[in-house]
Amino acid sequence: MAPVTVPVATSYFMVDQQGVVFNMWYLGWFDDAMTQFFTEAGYPYTAMNADGFDVQLVHTEADWREAVRFGEQVMIDVTTERIGSTSFTLSFGVRVGEQERSTGRTVYVVVATDGSGKRPIPPKLRAALESALNEADR
Amino acid sequence: MAPVTVPVATSYFMVDQQGVVFNMWYLGWFDDAMTQFFTEAGYPYTAMNADGFDVQLVHTEADWREAVRFGEQVMIDVTTERIGSTSFTLSFGVRVGEQERSTGRTVYVVVATDGSGKRPIPPKLRAALESALNEADR
Amino acid sequence: MAPVTVPVATSYFMVDQQGVVFNMWYLGWFDDAMTQFFTEAGYPYTAMNADGFDVQLVHTEADWREAVRFGEQVMIDVTTERIGSTSFTLSFGVRVGEQERSTGRTVYVVVATDGSGKRPIPPKLRAALESALNEADR
Amino acid sequence: MAPVTVPVATSYFMVDQQGVVFNMWYLGWFDDAMTQFFTEAGYPYTAMNADGFDVQLVHTEADWREAVRFGEQVMIDVTTERIGSTSFTLSFGVRVGEQERSTGRTVYVVVATDGSGKRPIPPKLRAALESALNEADR
Repeated sequence: MAPVTVPVATSYFMVDQQGVVFNMWYLGWFDDAMTQFFTEAGYPYTAMNADGFDVQLVHTEADWREAVRFGEQVMIDVTTERIGSTSFTLSFGVRVGEQERSTGRTVYVVVATDGSGKRPIPPKLRAALESALNEADR
Repeated sequence: MAPVTVPVATSYFMVDQQGVVFNMWYLGWFDDAMTQFFTEAGYPYTAMNADGFDVQLVHTEADWREAVRFGEQVMIDVTTERIGSTSFTLSFGVRVGEQERSTGRTVYVVVATDGSGKRPIPPKLRAALESALNEADR
Repeated sequence: MAPVTVPVATSYFMVDQQGVVFNMWYLGWFDDAMTQFFTEAGYPYTAMNADGFDVQLVHTEADWREAVRFGEQVMIDVTTERIGSTSFTLSFGVRVGEQERSTGRTVYVVVATDGSGKRPIPPKLRAALESALNEADR
Repeated sequence: MAPVTVPVATSYFMVDQQGVVFNMWYLGWFDDAMTQFFTEAGYPYTAMNADGFDVQLVHTEADWREAVRFGEQVMIDVTTERIGSTSFTLSFGVRVGEQERSTGRTVYVVVATDGSGKRPIPPKLRAALESALNEADR
């Protein structure tokens, strides 16, 4: 299965005086999408935490082509772009219907929840990430 | 000294498509104002935490008379309205210049940072709250 | 039908360092719940806007009994509490499962979208509000 | 003068359950910093709007090296990285004291406030941007 598609909420408080969803909320959406992605891929974020692992964002980038307006139903396609030893990259396609409005890419590092730093990607997380790996990259 | 007056930030992301600061941000402002109030009253929030105390909101209410727009400098007057045994009430006046745009009131309960529940208001916090007690209530 | 029950999103960015959803997001939820309520009651917010009407918050109050944590599914029960000539009051019950975590009440004034001020509640909005009127108040 | 340095607010609501400012707020900070930058560079955002111009974000990227915690005073160094015909790029250095915690870069397109699309960068905006151009790029 690649990609995993998840819905996100367009709240009124996200819409600025230009009448469009303000840019920072896309990073909130990417985070919401990652959470749902892990749940659908079989390794929920809360289970990951219980196993002693957490993720930290170290890099993000996003491109906006077309704005999102209040009342539009946004779907996000999440694809695994890269699986490294302690980090991985997810890419996000933000759609309304079939129209892609913006795209993003974020790099996460796996850390221990006890604050002791980086950890190799644990097997359950690796399996979840592999399930949404871009076919072309396999 | 009563009240304590503190500035808060009006960010572009707070302004909605009606062109006014969306209501939820006022609760963020009340919280920012409380933090600055404790600092000015001599018992910073971080010191309170280090001493093992934290505060939890249990009630809030707010009235909006006039909206705040992007670029306006907002000042908040913080007054202690009530000091109980484990809880206290702060009132907030949201001003632009001399014009009061809205008012709020929040009730906080003092809790232990170790999760063991309610605590009597510690002496240092009581002293800070008394410094901004409404003159009429003394 | 009374009340109308709607789900709201618990995003990671709403959770503060106490590990609970920060208070201001409840006002965002009340707004999201109002939007969904109007849709379910047959007069969507966008249709109301197209008819030349908007709503402004003039008063809100909320009580917190129990916190909401990351990953919990929140449902909000929306009930019409009062229908006046130019304003109305909605009440909100914030639940996780059958457990009520907090409650809120907000007063909205109906205004014209052209900025010309207050308007009597239009018939379609009145009908929507009446559909969720508290049985005891009929 | 290059760069322009501006303070931004670290609010409690920005801090997540990892105890650090959640990533999306950095985009809010970049926006706040841009607003203050235009004011200091002599062409405030409200004046730009009054002249019929607005800016839209089309690309952003950010790297996080070290987190920001509650109570830390954040300063942002804003530098003009590129001035094109209808777009420009600002870079942001997020500092606490002398320590750089993260960096960002955003690309903005100049548009007309009447919704008629892209515009060449107007002379007043160009002058403001040139005042913070990276010395090495002149």
